[in-house]
Amino acid sequence: MIGVFDSGIGGLTVVKEIRNMLPEYDVVYFGDTARVPYGNKSPELIKKYALEDARFLLDKGAKLIVIACNSASAVAREYLREQLDVPVLGVIGPAVHAAKAATINGRIGVIGTRATVNSGIYQLVLKNLEQTVPQSTGSSDRSVPAFMRKGKRIQTSTPVMSIVAQAAPLLVPLVEEGYIHKPETKQLVRRYLQPLKQQQIDTLILGCTHYPILKEVIRAKAPKIKLIDPAQTLAAELELFIKDRRELDRSLSKRHELRLYVSDLTLQVNEIANLWLGKHVNVEEVQW
Amino acid sequence: MIGVFDSGIGGLTVVKEIRNMLPEYDVVYFGDTARVPYGNKSPELIKKYALEDARFLLDKGAKLIVIACNSASAVAREYLREQLDVPVLGVIGPAVHAAKAATINGRIGVIGTRATVNSGIYQLVLKNLEQTVPQSTGSSDRSVPAFMRKGKRIQTSTPVMSIVAQAAPLLVPLVEEGYIHKPETKQLVRRYLQPLKQQQIDTLILGCTHYPILKEVIRAKAPKIKLIDPAQTLAAELELFIKDRRELDRSLSKRHELRLYVSDLTLQVNEIANLWLGKHVNVEEVQW
Repeated sequence: MIGVFDSGIGGLTVVKEIRNMLPEYDVVYFGDTARVPYGNKSPELIKKYALEDARFLLDKGAKLIVIACNSASAVAREYLREQLDVPVLGVIGPAVHAAKAATINGRIGVIGTRATVNSGIYQLVLKNLEQTVPQSTGSSDRSVPAFMRKGKRIQTSTPVMSIVAQAAPLLVPLVEEGYIHKPETKQLVRRYLQPLKQQQIDTLILGCTHYPILKEVIRAKAPKIKLIDPAQTLAAELELFIKDRRELDRSLSKRHELRLYVSDLTLQVNEIANLWLGKHVNVEEVQW
Repeated sequence: MIGVFDSGIGGLTVVKEIRNMLPEYDVVYFGDTARVPYGNKSPELIKKYALEDARFLLDKGAKLIVIACNSASAVAREYLREQLDVPVLGVIGPAVHAAKAATINGRIGVIGTRATVNSGIYQLVLKNLEQTVPQSTGSSDRSVPAFMRKGKRIQTSTPVMSIVAQAAPLLVPLVEEGYIHKPETKQLVRRYLQPLKQQQIDTLILGCTHYPILKEVIRAKAPKIKLIDPAQTLAAELELFIKDRRELDRSLSKRHELRLYVSDLTLQVNEIANLWLGKHVNVEEVQW
């Protein structure tokens, strides 16, 4: 099965996209609702929780781990890769890839939790991408000494890229309370977007599972900015990843099964699971 | 020592009041920052966490447990009393007592987390108080049959009491983000108070450790309503409770010591502890 975990139930948006993209593949989900949220906790604790979550999924038969939580992807993905023998995919790489392809002026914004923003991971991932992708034109032509290239107009298709990140922690509880189109939400969205707009971003990564639910509100406040939904870009990357690895693909069961587990089954969990994934979805509680 | 626990660090407001009221008594505090918040989790889980928190304090030498968290007081106080051999005090009883004494028209409001409001505990505590406190006047005079009392104007000093509770979950993250005087906060306070004002409450219990920090904002939106701060009323009740029990009092150490533990030591924890309790306060992390 494909294993997906999140700090809560926000990661069900990722499950939904995976089910759209890879409908036949079985998915097992774990939402750590007993310890939600992760975004305001320490990196050490998030790593510990992420490892426990992933191990639970492996016990349930996962052959591949998807971290649907941005905070856990930011802080714990490398750690899980070191600790586990299966592939571990996070939401950040695919989102940065997509943002890089979408931006025209090279200025990318991210909104996320405090843990995500403090990790500096988006900037790091971008830097690593920039270093591995070959430069396309003139400036990389080392046969011409720098002083001779001076003044020469260099055609370059890739602008200088930069990512500016903004913590937007209050949007999570607002979404969880269903305050989608309330004036308080609009005001906070405007407040959080302002420093990013001042930096003239043309592309914005919605770096927390809850934010895509505010897409319309964000679009209204920033109509010219392209929005990147990490749930969608992750699902697309996951498809490529699996199709590229025949052995892994063969190991994944394909009966369109979906198994959902949480560590605390509140009324809200069932409500949201049914709302997002359909009425006949069944969620089980596991005791740690 | 006096043991105090909370889901996070909000309960330090209770510690502060206890230190004001009983400065010589040693206090050990535990804030469960690794699993904060409790207010949106299930009653069963809150009970489990509360018992673990209390047992940690007993291990550290607590002879008396104070539940600083409203959600845990609401859901888990009776459970802890059954499970533990030491006295367990919560914030709800003293707050209802104080509200009952303060109200003139008998209409009391409460704002709290979803767990607190859903528990119905404030109404239950009020009902129990009403039943145990003797009625002061005519209507309790059983020597006169009811039909004879009919039509007679009865002088009564205690009005019919009622409590109306309103969940105000978004105020917690707003306080934690330091959004005290921001327009979004004022707007949400107005929104949450509106149904209570429609019920013509004259007294409001601030039923979550974070809310007293919004006292000024709340007062501005409801200038005629008396505000009850459960941290203060609990500290007053605690003093009476201890002074009434000589053996318990003797068992409590009195060196003005304060020991603070949390399950996740983030930067924010140290900051807030120093802000609320003074610069030389030291917080230790415990691993569960």
